[in-house]
Amino acid sequence: MTQVFSIRRQVEFNHCDPAGIVFYPRYFEMISALIERFFADAVGVSWKAMAATEGTGTPMGDIHIRFEAPSRLEDLLDLSLSVAAIGGASARFALRCTCAGELRFTGEATVIYASLDSGSGARAARWPDPVRQSMSRYLDAPDT
Amino acid sequence: MTQVFSIRRQVEFNHCDPAGIVFYPRYFEMISALIERFFADAVGVSWKAMAATEGTGTPMGDIHIRFEAPSRLEDLLDLSLSVAAIGGASARFALRCTCAGELRFTGEATVIYASLDSGSGARAARWPDPVRQSMSRYLDAPDT
Amino acid sequence: MTQVFSIRRQVEFNHCDPAGIVFYPRYFEMISALIERFFADAVGVSWKAMAATEGTGTPMGDIHIRFEAPSRLEDLLDLSLSVAAIGGASARFALRCTCAGELRFTGEATVIYASLDSGSGARAARWPDPVRQSMSRYLDAPDT
Amino acid sequence: MTQVFSIRRQVEFNHCDPAGIVFYPRYFEMISALIERFFADAVGVSWKAMAATEGTGTPMGDIHIRFEAPSRLEDLLDLSLSVAAIGGASARFALRCTCAGELRFTGEATVIYASLDSGSGARAARWPDPVRQSMSRYLDAPDT
Repeated sequence: MTQVFSIRRQVEFNHCDPAGIVFYPRYFEMISALIERFFADAVGVSWKAMAATEGTGTPMGDIHIRFEAPSRLEDLLDLSLSVAAIGGASARFALRCTCAGELRFTGEATVIYASLDSGSGARAARWPDPVRQSMSRYLDAPDT
Repeated sequence: MTQVFSIRRQVEFNHCDPAGIVFYPRYFEMISALIERFFADAVGVSWKAMAATEGTGTPMGDIHIRFEAPSRLEDLLDLSLSVAAIGGASARFALRCTCAGELRFTGEATVIYASLDSGSGARAARWPDPVRQSMSRYLDAPDT
Repeated sequence: MTQVFSIRRQVEFNHCDPAGIVFYPRYFEMISALIERFFADAVGVSWKAMAATEGTGTPMGDIHIRFEAPSRLEDLLDLSLSVAAIGGASARFALRCTCAGELRFTGEATVIYASLDSGSGARAARWPDPVRQSMSRYLDAPDT
Repeated sequence: MTQVFSIRRQVEFNHCDPAGIVFYPRYFEMISALIERFFADAVGVSWKAMAATEGTGTPMGDIHIRFEAPSRLEDLLDLSLSVAAIGGASARFALRCTCAGELRFTGEATVIYASLDSGSGARAARWPDPVRQSMSRYLDAPDT
């Protein structure tokens, strides 16, 4: 069975557009917060600690979201991720958002583990072993 | 040859994260603005007009972005779209962002043409003929 | 003694600017959330309920914030309000944000109780008595 | 006569709330962009240049906005500032936003000129003379 990491967010006025539904760029802020909390709370190395101790971060490389149903003011959203694959310097997450069990979106996101020196932009780096090990606890189980 | 629609946006402090690069959810705000201006300026029916006259809008159905290089404060970004396909109640856009010719991201986005009655959420509707015709001027040319 | 209403928010990557501190427009999103939760949780009439049953809302009329110290990634912010004054169709809040007891900002905000018909914009309305009564529990005590 | 610096921004879907009007935290993003362009285009020292050459920036110290009328989708907003006062390490701006001459908000904002070393937060610094001189061209004329 796959272990998933989740956060719950309530839809605020701030997130809603003139049609009264969540404006989709706000979902990407929530996805960023989901991945941020995953590294801080599940992996045990926050973005703040990565930047301070290794000079690294996990910039987004590729993200694909399929919206299934709109969300409205005060909805309680459950955003969750599992790890679909871990590469040498990248990780692929499976993403899912529901409200009271109803699907709002699914997706995939690939982050790059990279040094953040401000010169020439991000450069891919190898995941430290403890990070890789912590992430692997959330690896999707193979269908057997 | 394919006709493309573009807007130019300068990267503001507002868009940048602690690593000094554009925080990717801000790109989705720019993509929303690109599609908003496309309907207003190229198609000739703004979201405001759609909502007022037809009670319709174009919510996002599916979006996939591949980030190629980071953008920094004051970069002048050229965001462009062409139309990859027009369905009965949807349209698929090819998206591209460059800075001085350097690729920053590419992607695809599918919007749904839908009525926005606040009851049960969006319901797909058929594109009005003038909208369809205007969009088709931006259809990607088939490779021949 | 004055009763205050508070929410706690953790500073996310999303909130921080290239200098690594909270970008101040993000504080205004948090202040909006504070007032939103005050009406929903303390007053007992959420913005969603106001809009649905009365066609009203509480647009911002005047806001003044004094920033005392910067906030950083992962800081736990305590945002609180008390009611400084209740007018016929307005309310003035005293605002305060701290982190582990250290002051981050103080301010005042006046919201207008107004009908939201989309024609000519907001029109001031009288607070319903139950709303006024609930708000008055958070009125700043006079110095005696 | 007072010289003012202005930028024009069109209200996007992105800026609007479920009531169909600009969500006021978005105005603070526009104000940030106004001050950012003022330093880059009128003063001649962009925030990027300040950070790179002096390790300084202009964090917000105090801001007070009075909202006069709501703004709606597609409104063309003219945001302008003049300099009300220049201190040793601060500047006070008078702010104003109109649409087709109709007032949307007025306000005042005081920024601090400060070093941005990440240790103990911002520390006030003295304006470089060229910056002070450029800003003074936008000083409000005394009433005579």
